[in-house]
Amino acid sequence: MSLLVVGSVALDSIETPFGSTADALGGSAVYFSCASRLLHPVSIVGVVGSDYPMHELESLAADGIDLSGLEKANGESFRWKGKYSYDLQNRETLDTRLGVFADFEPTIPQQLTSSRYIFLGNIDPKLQLGVLDQIDDPALVACDTMNYWIQSKRDTLLDLLQRIDVLMVNDAEARELSGDWNIHRAARWILDHGPRMVVIKQGEYGAVLVDGKSTFYVPAFPLEEIFDPTGAGDAFAGGFMGHLAKTDDTSPGNLRRAMVLGSTMGSFAVEKFSVDKLREIDANQVYERAHQFSDLVSFEMADV
Amino acid sequence: MSLLVVGSVALDSIETPFGSTADALGGSAVYFSCASRLLHPVSIVGVVGSDYPMHELESLAADGIDLSGLEKANGESFRWKGKYSYDLQNRETLDTRLGVFADFEPTIPQQLTSSRYIFLGNIDPKLQLGVLDQIDDPALVACDTMNYWIQSKRDTLLDLLQRIDVLMVNDAEARELSGDWNIHRAARWILDHGPRMVVIKQGEYGAVLVDGKSTFYVPAFPLEEIFDPTGAGDAFAGGFMGHLAKTDDTSPGNLRRAMVLGSTMGSFAVEKFSVDKLREIDANQVYERAHQFSDLVSFEMADV
Repeated sequence: MSLLVVGSVALDSIETPFGSTADALGGSAVYFSCASRLLHPVSIVGVVGSDYPMHELESLAADGIDLSGLEKANGESFRWKGKYSYDLQNRETLDTRLGVFADFEPTIPQQLTSSRYIFLGNIDPKLQLGVLDQIDDPALVACDTMNYWIQSKRDTLLDLLQRIDVLMVNDAEARELSGDWNIHRAARWILDHGPRMVVIKQGEYGAVLVDGKSTFYVPAFPLEEIFDPTGAGDAFAGGFMGHLAKTDDTSPGNLRRAMVLGSTMGSFAVEKFSVDKLREIDANQVYERAHQFSDLVSFEMADV
Repeated sequence: MSLLVVGSVALDSIETPFGSTADALGGSAVYFSCASRLLHPVSIVGVVGSDYPMHELESLAADGIDLSGLEKANGESFRWKGKYSYDLQNRETLDTRLGVFADFEPTIPQQLTSSRYIFLGNIDPKLQLGVLDQIDDPALVACDTMNYWIQSKRDTLLDLLQRIDVLMVNDAEARELSGDWNIHRAARWILDHGPRMVVIKQGEYGAVLVDGKSTFYVPAFPLEEIFDPTGAGDAFAGGFMGHLAKTDDTSPGNLRRAMVLGSTMGSFAVEKFSVDKLREIDANQVYERAHQFSDLVSFEMADV
């Protein structure tokens, strides 16, 4: 089934303890689609400026990502510059230049309005609502947000929650949105406000899926080398949504598989700068790692 | 098989956002044994002062905990006073009075020197080594420690690591001991220094067992109400060791079950003050919750 992501297409400049990179491919739509395309075709709706390196766009297209909904505007592309602490646990934003992203109003081209699986990357909830107004009959809508929108556009965000199926946030965002520090109560609060499901991403600790009937934990894949945590959450979303779009199956068991594929993609994303790792692997490597998750959590209690 | 814990028997005064308690049963040996006794008989070696409320000791004995190795010394009992932050994520020690615990030199009574499963609670690693010198032929030795000993008795602690099977620490302790912020490299460092296994406790995120061949994650049981986190790690150890002593089986599959029973006990421990919850439940309730862990992590990847 058709898969659409709406989000940022950016150029990231990142310092980690292991090196630095400048004007590398970044943004939520890019991380999402570089992950999801390993499982299923994906279309991006976003905007780049007139300065965006054309060969980067061509290379995304060569990776099987549909760019027919990518707008090229006059002006500078969205740029983000950040620096991570020695243990990668904290990052500081050194510079944010919104450029053409500041005036981004997503227009869904006619051929994409019938998209069935929709991921709304972290943008103004007003724009996220505007996207949904242009989609005919989505099968499943998942959505990310951030502390900035929780604080500045709370009412709009609450309207949006009524129209989505899955909210995907990190634990700090879940706590801030709900006003509750207990993550399980926070999840229940979110479910009470609209979504059928909430996915709470917990970084190195993995992620949790809560649907009101059950709670499912997937760990983070154990990595001795983490290079650059940027984009792990969007790569997670790409694996999650890519699997759902590929299988067109939102049964509880398949949602759990989608969580495992999400965690798998997150683990690849952090192994190199930018989307470098996601672009050098193939679907076989993804499924091979996904299968390794079974051994990380399996146990048999029947005989006690 | 016989199970022995050596550790503190204390009186805790604790403030949480939900209330406070004064001079309640506490200490690593008490939390450990109140958990493990639900699975298997356990003996405590520890010390109390002449002021320790006798009815508390009698109630421990009534719970099936062998106190024949508990020394009654002249002086004040070990007292700890602490206060938790509103979200239970941080705690401040308001007062520590070691009392008779300051001069504690564990003497293992003759009838306990043949104990097979040994848990060395968080005390001076020199004393932990002294305990091992008194044990004939342990089947499995597990050990806790803390940042204070890692900093002040590092060489002794490294000697101890050569003589234990399982180190059980939290992630901050694993990082400090190894000097490595990556938890998987930290685990490997610890395995390189002696133990066959390391259990890294991660609070609300669960715990990880690493043995050099595989990594096993058990989540924390999802609780909407956490009352008092004190002693969760020792209760975890009690469930882990109680299961191993009961089954006398240290195969990989049984170690995973022990992790699940550890996490189960940790989740009960935090539901009330002190060891109140651990003392009001029975083994059936423990196994019932332990079985619920399967649904928290189970998924089937075979068909993708």
